[in-house]
Amino acid sequence: MPLPESSVLERRQARIRDAFDSLSLDALIVTEAANIRYLTNHVGSAGILVLTRDMAHLLVDFRYEAAVQALQDSPSACPGLRRWSVPGSYDDALVACLIDIGVSVVGFEAAHVSVGRHEWLTRTLAARQASLTLRSTEEVIERARMIKDVSEIAMLRSSAAALAPVVDAAIAAVREGVTERAVAGIIEGALREAGFDRPAFDTIVASGPNSALPHYRAGNRVLARGDLVVLDFGGVLGGYCSDLTRTVAVGTPEPEAHRVHAAVLDAQQAAIAAIRPGVEATSVDTAARTVLESRGLGEAFGHGTGHGLGLDVHELPRITRPRPDIPPVTLVPGMVFTVEPGAYRAGWGGVRIEDDVLVTETGCDVLTTSRRDLLTR
Amino acid sequence: MPLPESSVLERRQARIRDAFDSLSLDALIVTEAANIRYLTNHVGSAGILVLTRDMAHLLVDFRYEAAVQALQDSPSACPGLRRWSVPGSYDDALVACLIDIGVSVVGFEAAHVSVGRHEWLTRTLAARQASLTLRSTEEVIERARMIKDVSEIAMLRSSAAALAPVVDAAIAAVREGVTERAVAGIIEGALREAGFDRPAFDTIVASGPNSALPHYRAGNRVLARGDLVVLDFGGVLGGYCSDLTRTVAVGTPEPEAHRVHAAVLDAQQAAIAAIRPGVEATSVDTAARTVLESRGLGEAFGHGTGHGLGLDVHELPRITRPRPDIPPVTLVPGMVFTVEPGAYRAGWGGVRIEDDVLVTETGCDVLTTSRRDLLTR
Repeated sequence: MPLPESSVLERRQARIRDAFDSLSLDALIVTEAANIRYLTNHVGSAGILVLTRDMAHLLVDFRYEAAVQALQDSPSACPGLRRWSVPGSYDDALVACLIDIGVSVVGFEAAHVSVGRHEWLTRTLAARQASLTLRSTEEVIERARMIKDVSEIAMLRSSAAALAPVVDAAIAAVREGVTERAVAGIIEGALREAGFDRPAFDTIVASGPNSALPHYRAGNRVLARGDLVVLDFGGVLGGYCSDLTRTVAVGTPEPEAHRVHAAVLDAQQAAIAAIRPGVEATSVDTAARTVLESRGLGEAFGHGTGHGLGLDVHELPRITRPRPDIPPVTLVPGMVFTVEPGAYRAGWGGVRIEDDVLVTETGCDVLTTSRRDLLTR
Repeated sequence: MPLPESSVLERRQARIRDAFDSLSLDALIVTEAANIRYLTNHVGSAGILVLTRDMAHLLVDFRYEAAVQALQDSPSACPGLRRWSVPGSYDDALVACLIDIGVSVVGFEAAHVSVGRHEWLTRTLAARQASLTLRSTEEVIERARMIKDVSEIAMLRSSAAALAPVVDAAIAAVREGVTERAVAGIIEGALREAGFDRPAFDTIVASGPNSALPHYRAGNRVLARGDLVVLDFGGVLGGYCSDLTRTVAVGTPEPEAHRVHAAVLDAQQAAIAAIRPGVEATSVDTAARTVLESRGLGEAFGHGTGHGLGLDVHELPRITRPRPDIPPVTLVPGMVFTVEPGAYRAGWGGVRIEDDVLVTETGCDVLTTSRRDLLTR
């Protein structure tokens, strides 16, 4: 998959620089890998970006020097890039860079810099008598990333669409006598065959009583008649994540399984119907929760309704109940997130149904289109 | 794989409590997932542990309540456990717990708590007029985890040994005309077949010029005659990581490839020969580096020689050059780490050879035993 072109990065960087004024910053230190990629096209597990008003100072160690050079020779070159070598520790190199470029108020990502690292930077800058203030910032880039640009929407559509054959393979893999782990293996093989770079997270195959554990992964339990099986998986395609859940029954499910599945599906469809520009993210959660409460399943739905999707598999916006620790978010076109209500009863089992949606001018597009009824195998 | 028994956890918790005195702590807040698992057997992507002198207060949300109950009903129950529900945010629940249990000096993991989270906790505790001091600590649990106990050594031996058939499958998969991605797929399938829970990291298949990029992953490049192919992969078995690299040639390699491979292998064997209790971790790096320098490849070896292995694929000790930012570590029996020198030339290619070793009373055991010569395919 091609990386976005330089002009796209230019616009992304400009959006972040717009925030410099209100935050009174000369520069922003970016340490979170997906944020660095978003602003520079540098893909790596290490690197620090210092974004100033006119430059993108990228600190990378030896391992990434050739890759950065190749990037800069391509149509996806990072605008304003200056590469800094990191011969020893990244933090030493960061201090040297900050002093050299002569900035005075520098933001850092408070959610991604540890207290230990911050203590070291403050101490070291003081010891070098640098007249420089480090200022904590919150979700500056994450909030920009919440609204996808055209290149990202194309990638997210592709990533979601590429799940269709994986869903078929996953459902076909469910049968009496196989282990959860074997089903997970088939799903991950199908993800690769569908062109994904890698799974977006550890594949969940939760059968029987395990299906009541929303974050169970896949173990050695053998699927048996009467089981509900929650299949939750996704892939990373060109850097962008998709995420989907279906619940399948082995043999003939009991009537209660049908009832719970229908309630969760109704809740999911109600949530999707509530999505349009101008509504609060929490109201999407409320739409799902109201349906489940009306079916006596309010207590059984213990998690939020969804989460943003993009370079990370969990990003903004959060689709949850109103919570004092989460700033309100109003939906706007270009947001992409999951809608995944569920209902779980310890010892009995659980149902979850999850799709990925894109907020449009008038409502939303559901990007994952595989059938949602309670399939029996 | 069974989790360690309660008596093992008891000893681990006691080792951490021993550090409370020197740090003047009443309790330690543990937020890093592998550290929580190490002390409690709770396996999950969320949870907070507050370890006091006599209790292990474990905060988990709804998703993990049933799993914690099952753990406590098993021989691997966490000693002194009290489970706290997390109805909303983890940090709200943490503040409530700290106030309720009445501790006054509480350590936190400075490397794993972000500045943003620390700011919120400090502000919130002050607003509730809690007379409580948060004190930053560095690598308290990581340094305990550096020396593996008997149950961990058994797991790490199993994890390393289980790589043998995967190495065979990986080497067999290398041939002219296949993509790097296809080889990675075969390796990851073989990992699963060998019983691993999942890959320990994104599998690296770096061919031809890509082999000069130490942290390249696997792409669409088609393997061609004359390529060097670096295969770097590992698995997680019962929570414990293994990590191995071999370099294979496609067709008949040029003499320079043989020379570089022999130099890297000699460097690796020199490093392994240097491992015994009482020596500094840096001297293992020096042993490898000296060999490569003597062959004119000092500049071509731009990374450290190895890293600890355990619940994480990168942990203490670091096997690097002496660095001011890394506290010195003297090797003791029970340490497990990788030995993986390499040599890379941009545009030409690279060689890396990696094995996992356990420090013993007299030297070390090499846990990964697959052949290391330059295989041609």
